[in-house]
Amino acid sequence: MIKVGIVGATGYTGVELLRLLAPRKDVSIDVVTSREMEGTPVSALFPNLRGHVDIPFTVPDDEVLSRCDVVFFATPHNVAMKSARTLIERGVRVIDLSADFRLKDRAEWEHWYKEEHQSPELIDLAVYGLPEVNRAKIREATLIAVPGCYPTAVQLGFIPLLEAGLVDPTRLIADAKSGVSGAGRKAAVGSLLSEASESLNAYGVAGHRHLPEISQGLRQAAGGNVGLTFIPHLTPMIRGIHATLYATPVGEVDPKALQALYEKRYADEPFVDVMPAGSQPATRNVRGSNRCQIAVHYLKASNTIVVLSVIDNLVKGAAGQAVQNMNILFGCEETAGLDGIALLP
Amino acid sequence: MIKVGIVGATGYTGVELLRLLAPRKDVSIDVVTSREMEGTPVSALFPNLRGHVDIPFTVPDDEVLSRCDVVFFATPHNVAMKSARTLIERGVRVIDLSADFRLKDRAEWEHWYKEEHQSPELIDLAVYGLPEVNRAKIREATLIAVPGCYPTAVQLGFIPLLEAGLVDPTRLIADAKSGVSGAGRKAAVGSLLSEASESLNAYGVAGHRHLPEISQGLRQAAGGNVGLTFIPHLTPMIRGIHATLYATPVGEVDPKALQALYEKRYADEPFVDVMPAGSQPATRNVRGSNRCQIAVHYLKASNTIVVLSVIDNLVKGAAGQAVQNMNILFGCEETAGLDGIALLP
Amino acid sequence: MIKVGIVGATGYTGVELLRLLAPRKDVSIDVVTSREMEGTPVSALFPNLRGHVDIPFTVPDDEVLSRCDVVFFATPHNVAMKSARTLIERGVRVIDLSADFRLKDRAEWEHWYKEEHQSPELIDLAVYGLPEVNRAKIREATLIAVPGCYPTAVQLGFIPLLEAGLVDPTRLIADAKSGVSGAGRKAAVGSLLSEASESLNAYGVAGHRHLPEISQGLRQAAGGNVGLTFIPHLTPMIRGIHATLYATPVGEVDPKALQALYEKRYADEPFVDVMPAGSQPATRNVRGSNRCQIAVHYLKASNTIVVLSVIDNLVKGAAGQAVQNMNILFGCEETAGLDGIALLP
Amino acid sequence: MIKVGIVGATGYTGVELLRLLAPRKDVSIDVVTSREMEGTPVSALFPNLRGHVDIPFTVPDDEVLSRCDVVFFATPHNVAMKSARTLIERGVRVIDLSADFRLKDRAEWEHWYKEEHQSPELIDLAVYGLPEVNRAKIREATLIAVPGCYPTAVQLGFIPLLEAGLVDPTRLIADAKSGVSGAGRKAAVGSLLSEASESLNAYGVAGHRHLPEISQGLRQAAGGNVGLTFIPHLTPMIRGIHATLYATPVGEVDPKALQALYEKRYADEPFVDVMPAGSQPATRNVRGSNRCQIAVHYLKASNTIVVLSVIDNLVKGAAGQAVQNMNILFGCEETAGLDGIALLP
Repeated sequence: MIKVGIVGATGYTGVELLRLLAPRKDVSIDVVTSREMEGTPVSALFPNLRGHVDIPFTVPDDEVLSRCDVVFFATPHNVAMKSARTLIERGVRVIDLSADFRLKDRAEWEHWYKEEHQSPELIDLAVYGLPEVNRAKIREATLIAVPGCYPTAVQLGFIPLLEAGLVDPTRLIADAKSGVSGAGRKAAVGSLLSEASESLNAYGVAGHRHLPEISQGLRQAAGGNVGLTFIPHLTPMIRGIHATLYATPVGEVDPKALQALYEKRYADEPFVDVMPAGSQPATRNVRGSNRCQIAVHYLKASNTIVVLSVIDNLVKGAAGQAVQNMNILFGCEETAGLDGIALLP
Repeated sequence: MIKVGIVGATGYTGVELLRLLAPRKDVSIDVVTSREMEGTPVSALFPNLRGHVDIPFTVPDDEVLSRCDVVFFATPHNVAMKSARTLIERGVRVIDLSADFRLKDRAEWEHWYKEEHQSPELIDLAVYGLPEVNRAKIREATLIAVPGCYPTAVQLGFIPLLEAGLVDPTRLIADAKSGVSGAGRKAAVGSLLSEASESLNAYGVAGHRHLPEISQGLRQAAGGNVGLTFIPHLTPMIRGIHATLYATPVGEVDPKALQALYEKRYADEPFVDVMPAGSQPATRNVRGSNRCQIAVHYLKASNTIVVLSVIDNLVKGAAGQAVQNMNILFGCEETAGLDGIALLP
Repeated sequence: MIKVGIVGATGYTGVELLRLLAPRKDVSIDVVTSREMEGTPVSALFPNLRGHVDIPFTVPDDEVLSRCDVVFFATPHNVAMKSARTLIERGVRVIDLSADFRLKDRAEWEHWYKEEHQSPELIDLAVYGLPEVNRAKIREATLIAVPGCYPTAVQLGFIPLLEAGLVDPTRLIADAKSGVSGAGRKAAVGSLLSEASESLNAYGVAGHRHLPEISQGLRQAAGGNVGLTFIPHLTPMIRGIHATLYATPVGEVDPKALQALYEKRYADEPFVDVMPAGSQPATRNVRGSNRCQIAVHYLKASNTIVVLSVIDNLVKGAAGQAVQNMNILFGCEETAGLDGIALLP
Repeated sequence: MIKVGIVGATGYTGVELLRLLAPRKDVSIDVVTSREMEGTPVSALFPNLRGHVDIPFTVPDDEVLSRCDVVFFATPHNVAMKSARTLIERGVRVIDLSADFRLKDRAEWEHWYKEEHQSPELIDLAVYGLPEVNRAKIREATLIAVPGCYPTAVQLGFIPLLEAGLVDPTRLIADAKSGVSGAGRKAAVGSLLSEASESLNAYGVAGHRHLPEISQGLRQAAGGNVGLTFIPHLTPMIRGIHATLYATPVGEVDPKALQALYEKRYADEPFVDVMPAGSQPATRNVRGSNRCQIAVHYLKASNTIVVLSVIDNLVKGAAGQAVQNMNILFGCEETAGLDGIALLP
């Protein structure tokens, strides 16, 4: 039985972790923390959990959390980096869904997050939890930094091209579209239905915090520097990320070889589904599931490779990927608790 | 292993049946029919099923369907009543999600559906598949008529009041709100996003086909005639039914006793969740799940009992309830394949 | 030229007032106040107003506001009742879109708003700004209390029945559905797209602040006490209210006479559109317009009259009605600036 | 008085033309045609028009249409090219909202539309109705081809860069996002709310019919060949196009000069609003209005110019632009009937 604690479970990644973990017979959810909601049953806040999760929120307490085998931080950035050390010292595995340990370059982190990192000595320890790249390291990890939602969709889309050296790595464009839940369960005017519904806009054009994370991953795949333009967009739906990726080939492109490259790269990946040639995946295909669906196109007329990559930002882009990491870490079946079929329509 | 056939699986109740049945280890999906899509892999039409359902659609064929243990009709009305007899004669259990066998009064059926019933001799045989009322009969059934979506939400909400004789049965009002998927996966102007989004309207005010079905069920609960005003509304969401029910008490009302009545009536029901007093359930609490959540209120100032009842129209209102019936019929755990937690947000 | 000031124009009724007033050649928008946004151009907050409204927000200042002919309060309740007196004393007409002066019974106001009324001496002065009832008084008013959104839709729907004495006034039911903009442009978790989209729920079942306002108006129409059950619902759209009204006739009902009653009652009303018999209006019919569309049905089987009444909550339910009041008050054409056709789709 | 006929007014561009033209005192709407809806009042189909448009649909008839001064074709492609000639010969001006006369290269048209052009002799006569490029020609036109929705948003965004020779014209990327109304008021499964809501997908990746139209316009602006990758996306909203445009500068970029270039290019354009530097326009800023809002960004890190261009696809992308053309053609104020402020929220 894996004893689980979840810190900061009042947000969307928190309730999604609970949805995925509650039915598991090999997992017990022992602690769910929230300072504001102390004493309230989790299922009073999230009535979908009635009968599935019966404990109340409690105030985070290192003693209590230390009795867990693994603690998930479903918090905004800035929390895990203060609390992870104590837990790790006591032998607890930490899976951080926030951005605190994603960037390997401390200065870059501090530049983008505009504060001092509180646990710089843990940065090296942290394993970037993208199983399709780091599965072996995840298996041995003490501290896992779960990738961001955009970074998951964009990296999985670009990686085969960059690893194979097929495209000019200095001219990559990622035009990404996200549902509003990516902004979290936080009272903010811009996320109101009346603001975000029936509308669409780009944001973070001058620089989004996921840009350095994506670039870091793409550099590793390319084995060298990359030039990336990343434009995120807010779209009027709850869940889903659609990344439309543009790259310029360095040589001639054989569409069949291109398709085969993707199919081969992800042949053994349980959660990356390379669609048949010519496909145009919709985000709803993966709503509620841990899948990434990818389609790759070559446009001869403009000599451009276009990759379409879709995920559910709260599952493969957050809680599902966190559970996938837990499964790898604890030697469970990697797909345990993650084989639910997407809800369509 | 329960061998399953699904007739007419290109609609929303079809894909929902597949979502619920595909993961089951005790069920094999042997036949999925569609005339128009013959030869197309089911997962090409519904890409959420890739890797989960690998067979193609085939033309309905009695020989092939007869090899199944159970055949679901996920068709519009008018199909099952033509095909069920042959299958039943060959020993196949039939679970009809359409309206063909829901009404016990043939003349009433013919009045509302404006055609002759093709299998009147099967009407008596059919068991109305509302487990909360008919569980024992379902266990022995040959032919099951799965209740409609509105009827499920409205009956579950009113039944405790009527069985207990607490309200005037001649003055019942059901104001019901449905997501657009209730209209099915059928190209119709009124169901276009551009028509149905950012809008809300009543429809079927002069008479909706679910009215006689609801009345039939309420009469049974009341043990006598009922007077029901039923006004359905189209609302801008995909899934969900919210029934707001109004009734006039016949005597004094003790709110605690009222709450206790509901809790007791559904104490052993795995899929009816009576919410704590004062609750106001949202349809999203049950999205993708087989639950009905109910809250009951007494408004002293206007001496009116208000019941709020929510379901997912495609699950407890259709495919989930059909699977629940199958489970009862075949002696499986009643909740098998139906314990998924609602997707929130 | 009517010199206009708007207090609290950062909300949805504020921007809607600006949309309606900015194109007018007989109106000059002189002051637009907001403490938080002081100095920011109004069109920076609401980019739809670029080129139409060029002034910045300023801090509310009695001196400045006193130079206006009319001041609109587009504020939450509790603001106008503190500031209106000074303006009125200086000869400014005040049109209050909040609830401060809607209830004639001070004790009732204080009960529902849970605070002491700050200007009880103005309550009598205030004219309830429903032109279809109070046009003559509005013409002479100093202080106008613009009706709430639900009260507008519900009263316009019930009034003909009550005035004519056709129904039992003690058994009225108003099941109302509102878009999320009714909750205002206020950062609140419950109004987030991720919370309110793809869902529907009742709220305020135990008692909503619009209940006493509606009852007050219905009592006046009925000439005596009324019994009203009012259940509002939050629905996944930005704009629109759909009120579904249920009443029990006191005698025989002639559907044609019923239809004629409505047509006659509203024959001279520029903004109440009685639809042809059998109609089922959608909220989108009136989106962005100042119209109320009403359809009346008699259901013989259950002996119930059902009225469907739709408005745009931000227009006829707030800013448009406020402008209609201003037009009446200042002797403009009543439809000035309000003849825009609803945006469909 | 301009006598107007509208052919095919049962679609969204038709109702939008009526919304824009009905309030005009200088325009009379004399004929509104539809074969299917013959005899039905226009306002029965579109209840927002009740009281504004009182005529019924009639079957298209050359005699009747010939009495108009101008006839709009709000039809799918393939209709205007069969009917325009007769009307033109009789002196009627024709404004075609379909694609029939947009492409100057007949072979290219026949390649993309997969049929023979029925009036090739009119292709040269047709003026491409983008006022920001062709105002002088529009003034003299007999036949106007109103640009498509994507082409309007993309061309207005790219034109300043190409005319100034600032970017490499062979590496242009247009990632465009459209609301569902772009697909028209046509019963199609893919446009159902249950299919298109809560989802997002690219389509037409292998080649969309707007690609040659956009390329034709960009070639003219660039004065030579262009290489364009154009990927449209279906997004879950009714109205709005957001074009995100990527271009590679040919020399050093001075962000201030870039901003100034756009401001100067569109200084005299009533319907192109260049936003302040750093802006990120939302489609809702222009919902229901004839505006195009544009923001231009230079990303130094990746040496890429990003242009954000938003329109309402049914207004500036169709009916509004058609009316703008009519205004120019008939010597009206260019903004007549088009100065409505966008509906926000």
